[in-house]
Amino acid sequence: MSRPPATAVPATSPEAEPLAAHGLWSPASVPVRADLAIDTGRAITHARHLLDTGCHGLAVFGTTSEANSFSLEERMGLLEDMLASGIPADRLMVGTGCCAVTDSVRLTDHAAGLGVKKVLMLPPFYYKGMSDAGLYRSFATVIERVADPDLRIFLYHFPRLSGVPITAGLIEMLLRDFPRTVVGLKDSSGDWENVRMLLDEFPGFAVFPGSESLLGRALEKGAAGCITATANVNTAGIRATYDALRAQAADGAAKDETMRAVRKALEAWPLVPALKHLIAHYRGDHAWRAVRPPMLPLPEEEGAKLVAAVEGAGLQPLV
Amino acid sequence: MSRPPATAVPATSPEAEPLAAHGLWSPASVPVRADLAIDTGRAITHARHLLDTGCHGLAVFGTTSEANSFSLEERMGLLEDMLASGIPADRLMVGTGCCAVTDSVRLTDHAAGLGVKKVLMLPPFYYKGMSDAGLYRSFATVIERVADPDLRIFLYHFPRLSGVPITAGLIEMLLRDFPRTVVGLKDSSGDWENVRMLLDEFPGFAVFPGSESLLGRALEKGAAGCITATANVNTAGIRATYDALRAQAADGAAKDETMRAVRKALEAWPLVPALKHLIAHYRGDHAWRAVRPPMLPLPEEEGAKLVAAVEGAGLQPLV
Repeated sequence: MSRPPATAVPATSPEAEPLAAHGLWSPASVPVRADLAIDTGRAITHARHLLDTGCHGLAVFGTTSEANSFSLEERMGLLEDMLASGIPADRLMVGTGCCAVTDSVRLTDHAAGLGVKKVLMLPPFYYKGMSDAGLYRSFATVIERVADPDLRIFLYHFPRLSGVPITAGLIEMLLRDFPRTVVGLKDSSGDWENVRMLLDEFPGFAVFPGSESLLGRALEKGAAGCITATANVNTAGIRATYDALRAQAADGAAKDETMRAVRKALEAWPLVPALKHLIAHYRGDHAWRAVRPPMLPLPEEEGAKLVAAVEGAGLQPLV
Repeated sequence: MSRPPATAVPATSPEAEPLAAHGLWSPASVPVRADLAIDTGRAITHARHLLDTGCHGLAVFGTTSEANSFSLEERMGLLEDMLASGIPADRLMVGTGCCAVTDSVRLTDHAAGLGVKKVLMLPPFYYKGMSDAGLYRSFATVIERVADPDLRIFLYHFPRLSGVPITAGLIEMLLRDFPRTVVGLKDSSGDWENVRMLLDEFPGFAVFPGSESLLGRALEKGAAGCITATANVNTAGIRATYDALRAQAADGAAKDETMRAVRKALEAWPLVPALKHLIAHYRGDHAWRAVRPPMLPLPEEEGAKLVAAVEGAGLQPLV
């Protein structure tokens, strides 16, 4: 896997607009040790590898990062360690949406205070069936309390896991009152109709499908890029496809087909342990297989099938 | 509302078996101030009132307590303040189940260290579709790390909100390895068939339906009691029914009918703000209406309808 040419970075790269986000972002996997604590060394090595091999940025502490399986202190500690290691604040988007609004304020304020102004916010996700007005009040409380004019919030729509959809009505309310702060959304619904609706209804809003399988169609309609779990292992393949699609290159369709085949193969396994298994496999580093409960590592025999399936679909082995 | 006679406390009261739980437990509502912080004074007054007017115990930091809307520090702080005010540790069951296993360990260890050995544990509730083996590993990690032989865990089954059911298979696994620690379950599914199955399959397991509407049928089959949100306002009514049903008193059926009518009336409104509205109304204390986002207080006009509905159904005004 070679690093894509520097010219492939679009003009709207983080370097050009430090508060914006475009392109391929990966919710970086977070390795844990045998005692379940975050393995900071491996986490930083992996994060750097993703940035060096094609990711425009990292959505640290998303679903694939097992964010909600770590305490606030663990999450803040890893962010501090990543920045201290030299990972640029502009290339991070930190997950800060918690069930407790005070926790969301604390994580958001912590990130912004460290110069990480882009955050990916789940709605409060324990209570279901909450009104848009109540969800608005939750996001507004975070924005008002953090009170940072440079804060940029990307809403995180993942109804299958959160059980709390981000509706068009809620987005309208937030854009009306916080147009500079609420700037985009990660759509992990897997529903093209929802992605399309967002792109149609909210021009200029930075919409990221949560899967590269929708990338082609989404880019055509003006999506900002994609934030996708599988970028943890298919970094170069997805980045090359992204670049080819944006450049309307002749090989875009073929690249897109392979990329989507790899995704489809991966989806036959539970995604978080599957990605960790693949990282462990290609790095020859068994420790990477560990996950936090309630997840379990992929059994070895399943892992072997997984490797065969994704390579059969066209995944280039990681280096 | 008068305090029930002391003789109504069953022989298996907390006083007799400090690590057990039986009877009527209330997931106490937690008042918040205008700045959304916990209103400790009002919280303690309300908790004492519930214990003085009929609750055998309090399930502090359950769903009705807006537990997941508060930070760990806020939850631990209120528990410490309640104990310092003289509320007996034996009459508390603390919600300690979080998404992050380290958080569940921290809350459980904190409670047990203060002498509050009974905890009500949600499964980790962000990830959906987790295996029983993965959920087992999560609960087992808490039990192994807290390592308190007096710890008593009541599992919290609330699939509509958690999205993560506690299955019979998971209970079997836990009972096999931790028979002294995992002792019961609050079933908030509202599904009588599930309550019945638990009572049939796990004799001796302390099953509490999450609603008094199932109390009569559940007690007949050996349930431990009920843990119910509406005990925040219909304390005396539910306790009197519980006592009458247990004593097979002649007026049990009539009491049960009124109690269930009050519950049914209440269920037409969102339960957490509705209960706070009623407490505010009967105490003449407007501050009680406040809730944490993503909930919103009941609008005044809805509140007036609610009061009329529950009184029409037979709720005795609180004193």
